[in-house]
Amino acid sequence: MENQKAVALLDSGVGGLTVVKEMFRQLPREKIVYFGDTARMPYGPRSHEVVRGFVYQIIDFLQTQEVKFIVVACNSATAAGLDYYKEKADLPLLGVIEPGVRAALQETRSGKIGVIGTSGTIESGAYQEVLRRMAPGVELFSQACPLFVLIVENDLVHSPEAERVAEEYLGWLRDEGVDTLIMGCTHYPLLEDVIRSTMGPGVRLISSARETVRETRAIMEEKGLLRGQEDHLYHRFYVSGRAAPFKEMAARLLHDNIRAYQVILGEG
Amino acid sequence: MENQKAVALLDSGVGGLTVVKEMFRQLPREKIVYFGDTARMPYGPRSHEVVRGFVYQIIDFLQTQEVKFIVVACNSATAAGLDYYKEKADLPLLGVIEPGVRAALQETRSGKIGVIGTSGTIESGAYQEVLRRMAPGVELFSQACPLFVLIVENDLVHSPEAERVAEEYLGWLRDEGVDTLIMGCTHYPLLEDVIRSTMGPGVRLISSARETVRETRAIMEEKGLLRGQEDHLYHRFYVSGRAAPFKEMAARLLHDNIRAYQVILGEG
Repeated sequence: MENQKAVALLDSGVGGLTVVKEMFRQLPREKIVYFGDTARMPYGPRSHEVVRGFVYQIIDFLQTQEVKFIVVACNSATAAGLDYYKEKADLPLLGVIEPGVRAALQETRSGKIGVIGTSGTIESGAYQEVLRRMAPGVELFSQACPLFVLIVENDLVHSPEAERVAEEYLGWLRDEGVDTLIMGCTHYPLLEDVIRSTMGPGVRLISSARETVRETRAIMEEKGLLRGQEDHLYHRFYVSGRAAPFKEMAARLLHDNIRAYQVILGEG
Repeated sequence: MENQKAVALLDSGVGGLTVVKEMFRQLPREKIVYFGDTARMPYGPRSHEVVRGFVYQIIDFLQTQEVKFIVVACNSATAAGLDYYKEKADLPLLGVIEPGVRAALQETRSGKIGVIGTSGTIESGAYQEVLRRMAPGVELFSQACPLFVLIVENDLVHSPEAERVAEEYLGWLRDEGVDTLIMGCTHYPLLEDVIRSTMGPGVRLISSARETVRETRAIMEEKGLLRGQEDHLYHRFYVSGRAAPFKEMAARLLHDNIRAYQVILGEG
């Protein structure tokens, strides 16, 4: 009854909720167990070793929750060491970087791909590394956009500041002739409108959230892990920080009232 | 796939672990989700209204955990309002009082039944009420044994103090001619040896933990809720207080290393 189990998503905080939203859209029959490490976010500025230690604790917890698949729904956590997590978890596990890169390679005509993300993700060179491995001839232009997360978290998505900041970050990518832009942070789909209007209509935007769920679906299908029934689903949302602000954010993003509980890791 | 779900047990702290132990023995194929309200124990001295409020929060949490059956594995919580919980939970739910009383009625020859429990349970009159409803002619002798929980929690089960305290609590019940004694607190099976030697060989001891699991099994069987497979089971243990001391106690009682996590209720 492996396919009856839940799909686990882990994130440094609320960003992974865009992946949850995609799960609801693309895999509406799947149960979700979400862990948002809100007490220790953001992961971006932390060392890879520290982030890996956090993710190990979360994987330990998720493995008590009867899950069949783990999505590392956070670019910073993925960049910090996807191969380590794969070794630790005795479950299929997918990060958010490779699905985005694969989709971008399919879309690009000019061979000029842009990627935007947090400072941690961009400075890690993780996207560069994956792209070099998959398609050595393609040019990658990368830009850290640290203010984007703050704009989302502070509900400034539709402000003139958002447009100015977007122009500052993205103008040069547009001018370089990038024809495909990977939104390499799970927060960014929430800024899709302003990013699209800044980049112009000719540029394809790749949502790593959307692509990751698409690949999750493909892998689960291949392994016979998809859940068939259309019954009432209980999703489980856990956070390491206070539950109330997370619930508010989730209500706004998912247009759904969820229950969320604070769990203390570390002594488990 | 209702029968694939877990059986939930809730308790004010560690006492319900004796019910877990019985679950492992009688229902080894069932997954368990345990909630021990260790941050707010003991329930015994609190008002019924307060205890019901705590139990409502726990039921809310347990209902996010995909469970098919709820055992209120705590006499004080059961005494505080089983009918209220049945109304709140849209699941089959069983307390620990009625199963113990039913078993005692089957065993007694003299018609003199004893019950021991925490002050909260004994003073609530819950056992008296259930017995009056089920068998109005039977005599019930009840004794609060508040030190028993402390003896268990402080690992004094095999001490001379335990024997002296047992004689003080139980001597008069033996002398009254009680032939069946309900251990009306989930901690007490851990003191079974000293209780047995104090009461003498002619007195039958009823473990409410054992009887509750027996009835759980019968009800689940009748409803088609038993789980068939013999696969690897992940149990989930949650506490409202610190996880480490709970884990130690569980390791001693269950002879098993479990993972346990602290969950903060109230904001869920």
